[in-house]
Amino acid sequence: MTTQALVSEIKKKQSFLCIGLDVDLTKIPSHLLEVDDPIFEFNKAIIKATHHLCVAYKPNIAFYEAYGLKGWKSLEKTINYINKNHPEIFTIADAKRGDIGNTSSMYAKAFFEDLDFDSVTVAPYMGKDSIEPFLEFPGKHAIMLALTSNQGAFDFQTLTTDGQPLYQTVLETSKRWKNSDQLMYVVGATKASYFAEIRKILPDSFLLVPGIGTQGGSLAEVCNYGMNNQVGLLVNSSRGIIYASSDFDFASQAAQKAKALQSEMAKILADYF
Amino acid sequence: MTTQALVSEIKKKQSFLCIGLDVDLTKIPSHLLEVDDPIFEFNKAIIKATHHLCVAYKPNIAFYEAYGLKGWKSLEKTINYINKNHPEIFTIADAKRGDIGNTSSMYAKAFFEDLDFDSVTVAPYMGKDSIEPFLEFPGKHAIMLALTSNQGAFDFQTLTTDGQPLYQTVLETSKRWKNSDQLMYVVGATKASYFAEIRKILPDSFLLVPGIGTQGGSLAEVCNYGMNNQVGLLVNSSRGIIYASSDFDFASQAAQKAKALQSEMAKILADYF
Repeated sequence: MTTQALVSEIKKKQSFLCIGLDVDLTKIPSHLLEVDDPIFEFNKAIIKATHHLCVAYKPNIAFYEAYGLKGWKSLEKTINYINKNHPEIFTIADAKRGDIGNTSSMYAKAFFEDLDFDSVTVAPYMGKDSIEPFLEFPGKHAIMLALTSNQGAFDFQTLTTDGQPLYQTVLETSKRWKNSDQLMYVVGATKASYFAEIRKILPDSFLLVPGIGTQGGSLAEVCNYGMNNQVGLLVNSSRGIIYASSDFDFASQAAQKAKALQSEMAKILADYF
Repeated sequence: MTTQALVSEIKKKQSFLCIGLDVDLTKIPSHLLEVDDPIFEFNKAIIKATHHLCVAYKPNIAFYEAYGLKGWKSLEKTINYINKNHPEIFTIADAKRGDIGNTSSMYAKAFFEDLDFDSVTVAPYMGKDSIEPFLEFPGKHAIMLALTSNQGAFDFQTLTTDGQPLYQTVLETSKRWKNSDQLMYVVGATKASYFAEIRKILPDSFLLVPGIGTQGGSLAEVCNYGMNNQVGLLVNSSRGIIYASSDFDFASQAAQKAKALQSEMAKILADYF
């Protein structure tokens, strides 16, 4: 999917919500554990109830790999279900991959060809030749870690290099890579005041923003500092939406939580556009 | 597996060779493409021919994920085969994972519980709380990227922070993490002269060294700078061994390449111990 198509969808739905599909069998309603594929059935119900409120879904790959073959099968069914029924929705394989060039090419093949995701999250530590293979697929995107929402972000990402924090050097350097217009970036909502600095370096890029909800970030603050003239934000909520209830009403409760965020987003969009 | 058991095995086999199982269907002998599970059959033949010459196997997870469900099944069969037939061999899931804490826990569960690997490679960019979940499993190890073998290593890993290269800060910081005695580190063979600096920071840790062979690193140089009094090195070769021949004799040719490296290692061990 092109970023233009994503922007159109955001304006149409009045939403820049991304819903994280981090399915943990210990947290989903117990009645689902009796069906053949609980993870997929859970996802399908969540997607049916929320697809009109969000513009992106982000399965967190770890939660599928933890269940081995069965988990990978649930992931495959989930992405196929989204692509078939809601092709207008942007899909993100949250995988944080990155390796030497020929290996990154294999990961890109896994997520862009075998599974037909629109994008995959990647880690920058190994540099240019570990990321560029993800940018060789037309219409596909790599979403690179810049400044993450966890406490460990302060271990290395904010260290000073060449007179500025490492994450800023990462952003500046990545702009020079081949097909860098297909890059988006992960910036945690828990660090809202940093968005102003990031927008100086990346006025046009899309930012994927985790950390709203459970992790404590504020939507209004993120938008205040982070929005650009094409919106330029995908704000993710995972546990705050999908685990709104652990009972039979889980999907409708998830939709209510999603609706609350979408309404807040619609108001913000009305103020800015 | 404990590091003590690994050291015993190294001394017994006179080898610190790790063989990388990076199986690419476009590179394996064509007669294998006709069998039910070509990737597993290829691995099984390589393992049968080389297990007495090496102390570790390292499947590169990307190469399995690229084939989706089938690939994950081949991976599962490969690790089960090694654990059943050669439990003395140290196994490495080369996955370069790392995410916020609850997600890293799921990756750890995937590789240490669902698949029973001894270790998994991890990326440091997200800091302490992204790595510590991998260190909570007794007898299991996280192998963290420090200085990698690719050109992109110079993009960020060698940038100066606090008067020293970033990778050195990464090493020093990680020593303070919980259960850091279960950490090992990836250091590329293509940067042999850096090993002296790394050994000042990490006199005792095991280093996993890719980059011998296809990528151009020298075994003698790596040992000269990087060996410690417990050997402390696992030197990996992937393509140089497993693709020695693409004909019916691929396994015996792989064994010859492995034997050549093991002999070189035995000579070095004789000089040092």
